[in-house]
Amino acid sequence: MVSHVLLINCPDQPGLVFKITGILYHYNLNIISNGEFVERGFNYFFMRTEFSGKFDREALLQDLTNVLPEGVEIKLTDKKKKSIVLLATKEHHCLSDLLIRHAFNELNAHILAVISNYDVLEDLTRKFDIPFHFISHEGQSREAHEQQILEAVQQYEPEFVVLAKYMRILSADFVAHFSNRIINIHHSFLPAFVGASPYAQAYERGVKIIGATAHFVNDQLDQGPIIAQSVIPVDHTQSAKEMAQAGRDVEKIVLAKSLRLVFNEQVFVYRNKTIIFE
Amino acid sequence: MVSHVLLINCPDQPGLVFKITGILYHYNLNIISNGEFVERGFNYFFMRTEFSGKFDREALLQDLTNVLPEGVEIKLTDKKKKSIVLLATKEHHCLSDLLIRHAFNELNAHILAVISNYDVLEDLTRKFDIPFHFISHEGQSREAHEQQILEAVQQYEPEFVVLAKYMRILSADFVAHFSNRIINIHHSFLPAFVGASPYAQAYERGVKIIGATAHFVNDQLDQGPIIAQSVIPVDHTQSAKEMAQAGRDVEKIVLAKSLRLVFNEQVFVYRNKTIIFE
Amino acid sequence: MVSHVLLINCPDQPGLVFKITGILYHYNLNIISNGEFVERGFNYFFMRTEFSGKFDREALLQDLTNVLPEGVEIKLTDKKKKSIVLLATKEHHCLSDLLIRHAFNELNAHILAVISNYDVLEDLTRKFDIPFHFISHEGQSREAHEQQILEAVQQYEPEFVVLAKYMRILSADFVAHFSNRIINIHHSFLPAFVGASPYAQAYERGVKIIGATAHFVNDQLDQGPIIAQSVIPVDHTQSAKEMAQAGRDVEKIVLAKSLRLVFNEQVFVYRNKTIIFE
Amino acid sequence: MVSHVLLINCPDQPGLVFKITGILYHYNLNIISNGEFVERGFNYFFMRTEFSGKFDREALLQDLTNVLPEGVEIKLTDKKKKSIVLLATKEHHCLSDLLIRHAFNELNAHILAVISNYDVLEDLTRKFDIPFHFISHEGQSREAHEQQILEAVQQYEPEFVVLAKYMRILSADFVAHFSNRIINIHHSFLPAFVGASPYAQAYERGVKIIGATAHFVNDQLDQGPIIAQSVIPVDHTQSAKEMAQAGRDVEKIVLAKSLRLVFNEQVFVYRNKTIIFE
Repeated sequence: MVSHVLLINCPDQPGLVFKITGILYHYNLNIISNGEFVERGFNYFFMRTEFSGKFDREALLQDLTNVLPEGVEIKLTDKKKKSIVLLATKEHHCLSDLLIRHAFNELNAHILAVISNYDVLEDLTRKFDIPFHFISHEGQSREAHEQQILEAVQQYEPEFVVLAKYMRILSADFVAHFSNRIINIHHSFLPAFVGASPYAQAYERGVKIIGATAHFVNDQLDQGPIIAQSVIPVDHTQSAKEMAQAGRDVEKIVLAKSLRLVFNEQVFVYRNKTIIFE
Repeated sequence: MVSHVLLINCPDQPGLVFKITGILYHYNLNIISNGEFVERGFNYFFMRTEFSGKFDREALLQDLTNVLPEGVEIKLTDKKKKSIVLLATKEHHCLSDLLIRHAFNELNAHILAVISNYDVLEDLTRKFDIPFHFISHEGQSREAHEQQILEAVQQYEPEFVVLAKYMRILSADFVAHFSNRIINIHHSFLPAFVGASPYAQAYERGVKIIGATAHFVNDQLDQGPIIAQSVIPVDHTQSAKEMAQAGRDVEKIVLAKSLRLVFNEQVFVYRNKTIIFE
Repeated sequence: MVSHVLLINCPDQPGLVFKITGILYHYNLNIISNGEFVERGFNYFFMRTEFSGKFDREALLQDLTNVLPEGVEIKLTDKKKKSIVLLATKEHHCLSDLLIRHAFNELNAHILAVISNYDVLEDLTRKFDIPFHFISHEGQSREAHEQQILEAVQQYEPEFVVLAKYMRILSADFVAHFSNRIINIHHSFLPAFVGASPYAQAYERGVKIIGATAHFVNDQLDQGPIIAQSVIPVDHTQSAKEMAQAGRDVEKIVLAKSLRLVFNEQVFVYRNKTIIFE
Repeated sequence: MVSHVLLINCPDQPGLVFKITGILYHYNLNIISNGEFVERGFNYFFMRTEFSGKFDREALLQDLTNVLPEGVEIKLTDKKKKSIVLLATKEHHCLSDLLIRHAFNELNAHILAVISNYDVLEDLTRKFDIPFHFISHEGQSREAHEQQILEAVQQYEPEFVVLAKYMRILSADFVAHFSNRIINIHHSFLPAFVGASPYAQAYERGVKIIGATAHFVNDQLDQGPIIAQSVIPVDHTQSAKEMAQAGRDVEKIVLAKSLRLVFNEQVFVYRNKTIIFE
């Protein structure tokens, strides 16, 4: 049976849970799970309800709108597979991990295509019968190259764009086409080591922990809402290159975790942060 | 303002959240946080609501009972400090940690007394102006000693008994006096290394991880509902004694965490497991 | 330049490091890293030295033997790729992870073949141009099936056999053919949850942590020397099936880590434990 | 029996381990543990040897100097207790933890005194019979206050100064009196959230992990060599204040760990990093 997901956020006021669950009860829907959260700083209410059952979509949305405060955002969706396009450069580990999960139906998404500014991952991608676009950045301006990437992505009309170790910075223009729909994996525990070569920075600073951060991309480098983070211990015996090798497993696991949360409709974005119902 | 906590568990049926929140809304209570969970295996419903406001306790309970299914358990309490008695033997680290938290008002409990079968922790306890009872087990039967301990505990009428590294096994009789009200810290990640000398067992087995488990005590050794667990890495260079030293910090942190959860009324016990609203 | 690895273990006595490094110095070898450990319980000495340079193998071994105590074990090897055969059943995640690492030259081993009692992983394996043997256990005795598996493995003469979620218990006879050369991934933090269905056992017990253990296989089920372990937190909201899903990522990372350690010649086995130079 | 520790660092060259262990062998010393490390970037050699036995200190040092390269630093010390002074402000958790460990002989140091710019921790300190100096910063210039603190510290001639949540920035002048002998606990996983209010910064950024860092203090704020770090997960439900509460346990454990390493002579400082023999 299909699961539906109802996501509601609005200014908090008394009785919201009562009113919302009342309507769902009235529609005879079968609630599978329910979560609420009030952000106290801004007195803002978030609710995620997963349910099954038959209902008139327009009527349900209208009834909810009628009882909820002005400014409410209501998203009524389901947990069906999302459509995604992956961008990569030369490193394979995040792409490999997603291709494998996709092949075994564990990703909750359809990978429509892989796009890269190098061709080194083409063979891998084709093994899994996924279209691969090689769009070299050589000999072109940054703008021209990005425009080509944008067009390649847009032809697939994906719901999400996943940066699986895509090592080029996307412009604010590009990002604006996919607001809160681009997910990146950054190879440090942000906000430490923003920008290029975080493992080299980590080595240089002599940290005892390295990590990875999956986040939505906004128009400021590595500043978007954080979805998931994880770390591993390191020590003085590891070179920057060895830290990078050790970090790969964390990167792929954190990226996959963030996609699971987003594709299962468990994530709200509010004021550059995520609110996650697990 | 005082926070009240409403804990409800009963067989699941449609509309429970609607009905419960409806009553709270009717009473004009201010909901601070709300959590629900349905155990699918047994179709059992759990709800924890924290709220503030003025209300007639008997009337509220009656109204809830009226709309909820038969067999419902309703606990309406508050987050006020619990009263507790600590049992210890010779190791100080858990007792120290709790005495310090207590002294700085971080424990959400009043420590009424410390009881031990040795006197080595008496000086420490007295520094913090807590009564200390030294009840030696030497020269007595296990039963006679336990009876003395029981009487010493009972004179304080504590809500909870905390075994802060009390190294003697309590009989089913003793435990029956405090059903789900005795919390123990076991120095392994249960169910590994039940019983005596878990660090020696861990060393012998050559594990790469050791841990600690806080659990409610029931009538089977180390088999009660688990509240919290944590682990740390170890390696071949550490002797059993060094593992025990390394494990102390985990033990004290896990025990303190479990007490925070229990004393804040965040823990349900159901079929020898805990359901925890964090 | 090729790295050589010298592994020495013997009863401890004064001057061992001096004598060993003296010989290496005499041969003008360039030491890359050096580690020593004395197991105090049995007064046993372990040393691992990685070095480069040219030398007469027989002469070096003879010189070392001359100065070291009787009973010494000396292994002079290099970090060249090992040859391995993988056994699997139906779950893909460990096999996938190893095939990918192999394809990108990150495994330090040649995968000679994959052998399974089901054919579900054949397509995946063939994508990576690795021979796949489907040897069904249906309609045969356990002994007959194992004999077939043994013959299939032996034709490849592998240095190591890796059980990448091979869900059948191997007999002591089978294991005896590959002493300390079979590596298994068990889906629990051993010694908790030995045997079948550890996630169901974990769910039943209500643990707050689950894990995975990579170990050498000996003739007792899940009792061999532990190489690597890792854990993740779980809670009451997760079913046994969801725990199993969450555990997959830990399993594949822990297995890969254990293979890296073993294939890089960093692991001694002594009295059913591992001594690991990291 | 007393353990001695020999710490040697110098430019790397062939035969160093052979030469050093040869001298120790010649002196009939009983090596307890031995570790070496070569920093490849700068080709620099580090060795730590723990041993027992009787020897002529001057002769041993002379013999070592004779065979080692120019510029070598040799430190021959023992694992006897260090003398320390603690600085604190108002938060008790790190101070409490150290006072308790000290009281039970687990710190490997003598706490000579506690100095604070507030008096709130005086009662706690006096429970453990440690001198407490209250030196208020009110009504004085930063320089004048720091000068008073310096004089209070210096009268005890401590080997190390431990900043147990001392919330004032020390000047380069102050730090210069105790080069690599001041240890601070910073309440973030550095280099994230340098400076004031790291938990508020972490909350604002919406991170999913917070942490703590113990480091030597140098003349740049929060930039000194890192000794130990640890982290815990957080989520959107936690306010900055709740993150700070959750972080306390990490802070006290990380600080205690760093002190154990430093006081046991396991830490080299080299080019603003630590090399730690565990």
